[in-house]
Amino acid sequence: MSIETINPNDATSPAEPVAVLSDEEIFAAHQGGKLSISSTVPLASKRDLSIAYTPGVAQVSRAIAADPELAKTLTWAQRLVVVVSDGTAVLGLGDIGASASLPVMEGKSALFKAFGELDSIPLVLNTTDVDEIVETLVRLRPSFGAVNLEDVSAPRCFELEDKLIEALDCPVMHDDQHGTAVVVLAALTGAAKVTGRELEKLRVVVSGAGAAGIAVAQMLLAAGITDVVLLDSRGVIHSERADIAADPASKKAQLARSGNLRGVSGGPAEALLDADVFIGVSSSKLAEDHLKLMSQDSIVFALSNPDPEVLPEVARQYAAVVATGRSDFPNQINNVLAFPGIFRGALDAGARRITPAMKLAAARAIAALAEDDLSADYIVPSPLDPRVAPAVAAAVAAAVEAE
Amino acid sequence: MSIETINPNDATSPAEPVAVLSDEEIFAAHQGGKLSISSTVPLASKRDLSIAYTPGVAQVSRAIAADPELAKTLTWAQRLVVVVSDGTAVLGLGDIGASASLPVMEGKSALFKAFGELDSIPLVLNTTDVDEIVETLVRLRPSFGAVNLEDVSAPRCFELEDKLIEALDCPVMHDDQHGTAVVVLAALTGAAKVTGRELEKLRVVVSGAGAAGIAVAQMLLAAGITDVVLLDSRGVIHSERADIAADPASKKAQLARSGNLRGVSGGPAEALLDADVFIGVSSSKLAEDHLKLMSQDSIVFALSNPDPEVLPEVARQYAAVVATGRSDFPNQINNVLAFPGIFRGALDAGARRITPAMKLAAARAIAALAEDDLSADYIVPSPLDPRVAPAVAAAVAAAVEAE
Repeated sequence: MSIETINPNDATSPAEPVAVLSDEEIFAAHQGGKLSISSTVPLASKRDLSIAYTPGVAQVSRAIAADPELAKTLTWAQRLVVVVSDGTAVLGLGDIGASASLPVMEGKSALFKAFGELDSIPLVLNTTDVDEIVETLVRLRPSFGAVNLEDVSAPRCFELEDKLIEALDCPVMHDDQHGTAVVVLAALTGAAKVTGRELEKLRVVVSGAGAAGIAVAQMLLAAGITDVVLLDSRGVIHSERADIAADPASKKAQLARSGNLRGVSGGPAEALLDADVFIGVSSSKLAEDHLKLMSQDSIVFALSNPDPEVLPEVARQYAAVVATGRSDFPNQINNVLAFPGIFRGALDAGARRITPAMKLAAARAIAALAEDDLSADYIVPSPLDPRVAPAVAAAVAAAVEAE
Repeated sequence: MSIETINPNDATSPAEPVAVLSDEEIFAAHQGGKLSISSTVPLASKRDLSIAYTPGVAQVSRAIAADPELAKTLTWAQRLVVVVSDGTAVLGLGDIGASASLPVMEGKSALFKAFGELDSIPLVLNTTDVDEIVETLVRLRPSFGAVNLEDVSAPRCFELEDKLIEALDCPVMHDDQHGTAVVVLAALTGAAKVTGRELEKLRVVVSGAGAAGIAVAQMLLAAGITDVVLLDSRGVIHSERADIAADPASKKAQLARSGNLRGVSGGPAEALLDADVFIGVSSSKLAEDHLKLMSQDSIVFALSNPDPEVLPEVARQYAAVVATGRSDFPNQINNVLAFPGIFRGALDAGARRITPAMKLAAARAIAALAEDDLSADYIVPSPLDPRVAPAVAAAVAAAVEAE
């Protein structure tokens, strides 16, 4: 589990030599934080001050007071994404609190700028009460234009996202859910093509029923896949399982009804028997014995970070396509393929919501970019591919227009 | 009151030709807002991503979870100033709301960076409830390192600042109060020297008993001046006035007891008779007839923006030293001389409070920079003087050490 064993590779080929990250290098990069504010206007002369600050700014404030719509063009708020977390489910580290989550949120804000050309600031809260978080963002509403929820624990994240969408008239997205789901759908689209299958006919197992697992299952169903079986720590999720039957309104129960149509029960072995696709978004390992049960030319997405559910070299003995969340293996499934373009497209189009149609459009745009060069080791574009965010933004904006 | 009549002048001499600001130019500068976020770390390669984001960032989050003190060096929060407003007293425009206040707050954040080299973000709230504002900032506490309150109406601003200081373990300062007071004290120190007087023996009238007026009066008393008479819209503030007697715990009543020791009553004429100093921080005009009543070689600070209480060319017929808040007249009394250095010094020294001693140190540092070149037209350094913020920061940090 040591980070020092990670070998991030700048090269597109996984065979190239890689450099090891040292603690020193990591901590040096994070000294003082990773974000910086600058002024977009000059402040070097009295004249500059008179334009940007008093007295000139009074004209601008007066204009917005007279016509609140002008705040959309005369402030940075309309296109500012706040990256919001309560630190309850940070990476694979769990509930480590707001302060400890901040380096992640700063990184996210930096990625919004680098890939989506959107300004973004982290707001981390030392309350984990869903209603208090909603109330806080409602009070701050004039300060921002969109909310990227991050690293909030399940099932609280579902309630929090729902309530925020209800309370705020701006795009809200929990990236751990929907960003992941979009990129998984894009990658699965590529993997289905590489293995000569129809996407809709895939038999899929999702291991992990937290934020990502639930959203991935929902997204695959929305994309037309009909056979999606979820696994959590107690095994296969099905309607007769006592805890599922006890809470029929839960997301798990809903997905048991809509995805587990064959009524599969039992554990990983029962779920994976003849499955075409394994999607791991929990820390549970995928045993080699279970891999063997899957169909010929299976597809394995082992997305746990930093330790995949199964190592690619093991999985590739059985599966035709293997993807992970890591940069040092081929087929990196990374949310950065999705969230900058999704928010950029939503804000460009003036959307008030991020809808299923917008997410499907994003997934298709990502998949389309990989289409011409598809292979077992290239089912999605690289997270660094500069074509991705603009293509996603354009597709999302078009979906807004179409709705 | 048109901004187009303002003639901001880049030159140090007020006699130089000036350019007029057009609406077009002002609005063009504010398009899209005035702030931009950037990453301080590279994000161009997979290796970069691995250091700044996953998996590398997990090391940093884990370290902070184990030792929360590390958040002070491994995030940007410790040195991030939030500029907070509810938009209830914006410039001279009054209660125009949070959105309309945002251009001012963005400008303030830009000035923090330009003069104090501090990162800063605006947070504007659409609640004006003092306790809700406090609660909001308490919840966001892990996101920032200091609070600059701005453009909050009096007397709410006093309660809000007091409660924030109580609730947050970081520097909090309402700049309209204390920034103004610090710069006024610095300028008055210079003006006293130019007119050959002792600061402590000045007879001072403060016109306006809002945020700025109250804080200026408190600061002058703290600096050793004993005769400070306040005027509000009802005239001289004294202990026998019905509304003052009715609320003896109010700031006005406190200042009536501590500053109006001669028991002055009446209106501006009674207050200004034989006064050495007029400090205007309201929109009330200073009549020429009242100016005539002041002592020989009087000092007039007409600080209302954009329209001073009296125009300098009128005031100079009677007064030896005249200052305004405007950049197109000599002796500009501008908060930017104080707030960047005060916050920078407080954060450099790890202060949890901004104390009277720190504010006095800031005022003395500003005054000291003008000392060698003092004249009737140069009682404070220019707001653009690059020596100011570092000198203020050093003096404030030294005051923290001394306490």
